[in-house]
Amino acid sequence: MTTVQLKVQGMKCGGCESNVKEAVNACPGVSAVKASHKENLVEIELDPDTADVAAIRQAIVARGFTVTD
Amino acid sequence: MTTVQLKVQGMKCGGCESNVKEAVNACPGVSAVKASHKENLVEIELDPDTADVAAIRQAIVARGFTVTD
Repeated sequence: MTTVQLKVQGMKCGGCESNVKEAVNACPGVSAVKASHKENLVEIELDPDTADVAAIRQAIVARGFTVTD
Repeated sequence: MTTVQLKVQGMKCGGCESNVKEAVNACPGVSAVKASHKENLVEIELDPDTADVAAIRQAIVARGFTVTD
């Protein structure tokens, strides 16, 4: 299990956090997601053999947020 | 020009409203969008000849919100 941290801009409340978490949780290989709109941070526990970080980033962007790191 | 009102669940703040407005504005034939998370309402001004309301609904759902009416 690996932890990946992404800087995500555009989350302004708990609803935005839930939106991002739902998108990331739907990606293969993801076992846990935390999101903080105060820190602009999304922390993802994933299986590096099955998860595709580029696809996870795209899933967040498709929900209307910006991944900056 | 026609006005379409959609009931949208899941918007919790101004950030969510902006997210929905951005998605709807990107759809063809849309000239103006208002969104209210307090009323769970999205009001769209569109050209009925070029806009596709089903596509607009899908664009909102793709951002993680639910269209209930």
